[in-house]
Amino acid sequence: MSQPGTTSISLNDLAQAIGVKLYGQGNISITGVNNLEGAKPGDLAYLAHHRFLEQAKQSQVSALLVSKPYDELTIPQLISDNPQFDFIQLSNRFFPIPLPSRGVAQAISKGENVRIGSDVSIGPFVTLGHRNTIGDRVTIYPGVCLGNDVSIGEDSIVYPHVAILDRCEIGARVVIHAGTVIGSDGFGYIQHKGVNHKVPHRGNVRIEDDVEIGANVTIDRATFGCTLIKRGTKIDNLVQIAHNVTIGDNSIVVAQVGIAGSTTIGQQVMIGGKAGLVDHLTVGDHARIAAGASVLRNVEKGTTVGGGIPALPAEAALKRQILIDRLPEIRQELTELEKRVQAIEGKPRKTKTRKTKIS
Amino acid sequence: MSQPGTTSISLNDLAQAIGVKLYGQGNISITGVNNLEGAKPGDLAYLAHHRFLEQAKQSQVSALLVSKPYDELTIPQLISDNPQFDFIQLSNRFFPIPLPSRGVAQAISKGENVRIGSDVSIGPFVTLGHRNTIGDRVTIYPGVCLGNDVSIGEDSIVYPHVAILDRCEIGARVVIHAGTVIGSDGFGYIQHKGVNHKVPHRGNVRIEDDVEIGANVTIDRATFGCTLIKRGTKIDNLVQIAHNVTIGDNSIVVAQVGIAGSTTIGQQVMIGGKAGLVDHLTVGDHARIAAGASVLRNVEKGTTVGGGIPALPAEAALKRQILIDRLPEIRQELTELEKRVQAIEGKPRKTKTRKTKIS
Amino acid sequence: MSQPGTTSISLNDLAQAIGVKLYGQGNISITGVNNLEGAKPGDLAYLAHHRFLEQAKQSQVSALLVSKPYDELTIPQLISDNPQFDFIQLSNRFFPIPLPSRGVAQAISKGENVRIGSDVSIGPFVTLGHRNTIGDRVTIYPGVCLGNDVSIGEDSIVYPHVAILDRCEIGARVVIHAGTVIGSDGFGYIQHKGVNHKVPHRGNVRIEDDVEIGANVTIDRATFGCTLIKRGTKIDNLVQIAHNVTIGDNSIVVAQVGIAGSTTIGQQVMIGGKAGLVDHLTVGDHARIAAGASVLRNVEKGTTVGGGIPALPAEAALKRQILIDRLPEIRQELTELEKRVQAIEGKPRKTKTRKTKIS
Repeated sequence: MSQPGTTSISLNDLAQAIGVKLYGQGNISITGVNNLEGAKPGDLAYLAHHRFLEQAKQSQVSALLVSKPYDELTIPQLISDNPQFDFIQLSNRFFPIPLPSRGVAQAISKGENVRIGSDVSIGPFVTLGHRNTIGDRVTIYPGVCLGNDVSIGEDSIVYPHVAILDRCEIGARVVIHAGTVIGSDGFGYIQHKGVNHKVPHRGNVRIEDDVEIGANVTIDRATFGCTLIKRGTKIDNLVQIAHNVTIGDNSIVVAQVGIAGSTTIGQQVMIGGKAGLVDHLTVGDHARIAAGASVLRNVEKGTTVGGGIPALPAEAALKRQILIDRLPEIRQELTELEKRVQAIEGKPRKTKTRKTKIS
Repeated sequence: MSQPGTTSISLNDLAQAIGVKLYGQGNISITGVNNLEGAKPGDLAYLAHHRFLEQAKQSQVSALLVSKPYDELTIPQLISDNPQFDFIQLSNRFFPIPLPSRGVAQAISKGENVRIGSDVSIGPFVTLGHRNTIGDRVTIYPGVCLGNDVSIGEDSIVYPHVAILDRCEIGARVVIHAGTVIGSDGFGYIQHKGVNHKVPHRGNVRIEDDVEIGANVTIDRATFGCTLIKRGTKIDNLVQIAHNVTIGDNSIVVAQVGIAGSTTIGQQVMIGGKAGLVDHLTVGDHARIAAGASVLRNVEKGTTVGGGIPALPAEAALKRQILIDRLPEIRQELTELEKRVQAIEGKPRKTKTRKTKIS
Repeated sequence: MSQPGTTSISLNDLAQAIGVKLYGQGNISITGVNNLEGAKPGDLAYLAHHRFLEQAKQSQVSALLVSKPYDELTIPQLISDNPQFDFIQLSNRFFPIPLPSRGVAQAISKGENVRIGSDVSIGPFVTLGHRNTIGDRVTIYPGVCLGNDVSIGEDSIVYPHVAILDRCEIGARVVIHAGTVIGSDGFGYIQHKGVNHKVPHRGNVRIEDDVEIGANVTIDRATFGCTLIKRGTKIDNLVQIAHNVTIGDNSIVVAQVGIAGSTTIGQQVMIGGKAGLVDHLTVGDHARIAAGASVLRNVEKGTTVGGGIPALPAEAALKRQILIDRLPEIRQELTELEKRVQAIEGKPRKTKTRKTKIS
């Protein structure tokens, strides 16, 4: 996946760029980044754990980021406190994935009073509404549709077929993957004589800086006010975020999670894949919710919530799970105990029809 | 969110428009609608419950829809049997959310024999297939794709990047949010010598009047015949509706629900978020299915089905849940009872290895 | 759904085409295919099971594919070992669903060095990136976006608004339904000082021949290397497939399934709707995973995994489920047994507060 030949930088320079110590020979050329399995000569990789040492020895990789020097390795090493983090830093800085060429395609539709910053890339078949503000160095892939009064902060990337509807605000360095919808109406109806009447949704969605949003995600606009995703939060594919939800800074929301209306999530929260949170909950900072959990009650700050239905604190969830798994044993012990009691009673009892026997 | 200045109407006129009683001074100007929290002078809001009375007092709101007059409030009030419903009525009638300007964009692709009604709005990069019929006052946002022989009834709104494929029929006043796919092939294969052979899907999808469908929803066409969403039903984001499903009138399907092939849902049914229904089920009118339920059997008319796996009637589901939550207690009582029996037996028993002890 | 008049072929010819025996009169004209319910004169249908015999008698159908001859039926019959399979064969061969007309629309955007095969159809508002290779007879519906260095094999069909991003490879006879995203970045971050840093995703997605992918699916590109869907596998709507997942040949993945990063699925595996698989698992060939299962551990070759949380082998899952359903009975038996022991002990015991009584 590296693109040999396009970039070449000495290992010495890489070490210096991130201020790490070099172990071995530094005057070699690094031409790409890769994992151990796919690495070719010229590639830099990292050693995630010493159990991959054997794989590293077999690899064609030219240099490695490691947490401590390995004498067993004949290739040069960069000694880093966080090899994976430094690998990302070097990858992004010296071997970046090329963005589309800059410039605005001919075949776009543009409303009135649109402000487009410098060094922007806008692909074909993009619709910009009235009064859009597009920051410097923004990349808008083909087929994106922006409503009226939409703003996108600098260096953001919007992939194909994303729709950002009227009045939504996107911060800087935000990445939105293909097919995602931001600002669809919330799902609210008032029943009147057996008919569902739509609650108008006049609020918007605000995505703060450094947020990343996966593909085919849906984030509904607020009834009034704003559905808010705060700085640095990362959202995976096919997630549903309902009207008036707030998610705090630097949280992680894994694929296919659903968060119902007006629920408020704290900062640095981790929500596992497919978890569901009902409406009007509060989830405290640093909480961790297991994949698949059905969260029906508030979650305290710092709590880990286990799987199963309904979601429980992790320890209680595990206990419940173990007991459920051992129900056959409980059933059998109860049956045996009944026999013993019967023996003590010394008389035959009318046996009830036992429906529970299954083994 | 209100747009002060653009509309101004006296409170007297609003009261008269919906036939409700005014309590307080009616000759003030209302310029927008809002919730209590966001309201600015000139805004009308409603009081959902008397527990929000204090918030109402702090609000800058100029008038309130209430279910009974409140002397504590110094602002004028409209007395309504259903304040939220009347709020919606007034919002839509006097402070509507503006639709895109009318007219057909230049940059569209149009097949043969397309009939377009009056006062229609069609955005750029829209594809209309052959023999489309677009009713009066329909709004089609940018990037929508209609197949051949598609019809859309009057006053419907189709948001960006919706695909409505060949032969599907959309009623009047239908709203379809961005990214939704109507008329993808159903998921049907016949295995023959270890290979899956696709069942052709020659049916269509029919969406009746007043249906609303969320963003990134998928509704598959029928194998033969039609996948049918009946009048007034509301479907949230990321819902999957398989081939040959029928959903009755005025039902509610919350986000991320999945309904498998040929299942038939009655009218005024409520299906909570993330619930899954297997194929070929029948769900009776007015049934209610809890969020996250795995529905494996038919649901009788009027039944409430609780969460957990498999879904059970609500009372049984709750009972099951309580017993699951109390398994530690059952486990402990059983252990204690065994000791008592052993004491009665008066002889030491060989203790079995107990794997169940966990606390 | 048949289109009477457009095609007409004698039943004799149909019988001969697939080499099956005719029972009854063969010199009638077949003009379409249908199911029993919707069939009109001229239509061919199949009898899936003899319980539909009565329906067949009522039907207007002109001929039937059956597994054995039925004297009760007055219409001619084709005797087939696999009526449904032969029905598919005949439908596709003699009554195909028409694809869009061939040719490349004017309003497309095309990068440099794009190779387009013969007899291709490309709809309006399609974006082809640089160095795309489009095989013979490929159909690309309106609004599709292909990144750079994308290839699509011959006879594949790509429905509206699909995005296939840089460097992804699509085989021959692949069908990708509307709104699906192939090659979005995987969801990977490294935490450093409380901030999530994006792991660059430099791999791609490879879809082998004869794969079908539903609508609004998301398939993430690999970190390095490739996310791989092997030959003949069929994926339903709204499925999430994370980075570096591999799915073997001829597997079936039903709607709303989520498969987390680096999990490897064997061949001819069946994964039921809404099932979730955590990361780095191995699922053996021919395994079957129930709808809604939460798979947290590896699944052995040929195993059937039941529902519930966590997923268990089917027999254990069923046993667990039955015991859970019968917890009220266990609770009651335990209470009765305690009373009997107490009677034997012959002295009143201090009754503990029983929290478990619920009925």
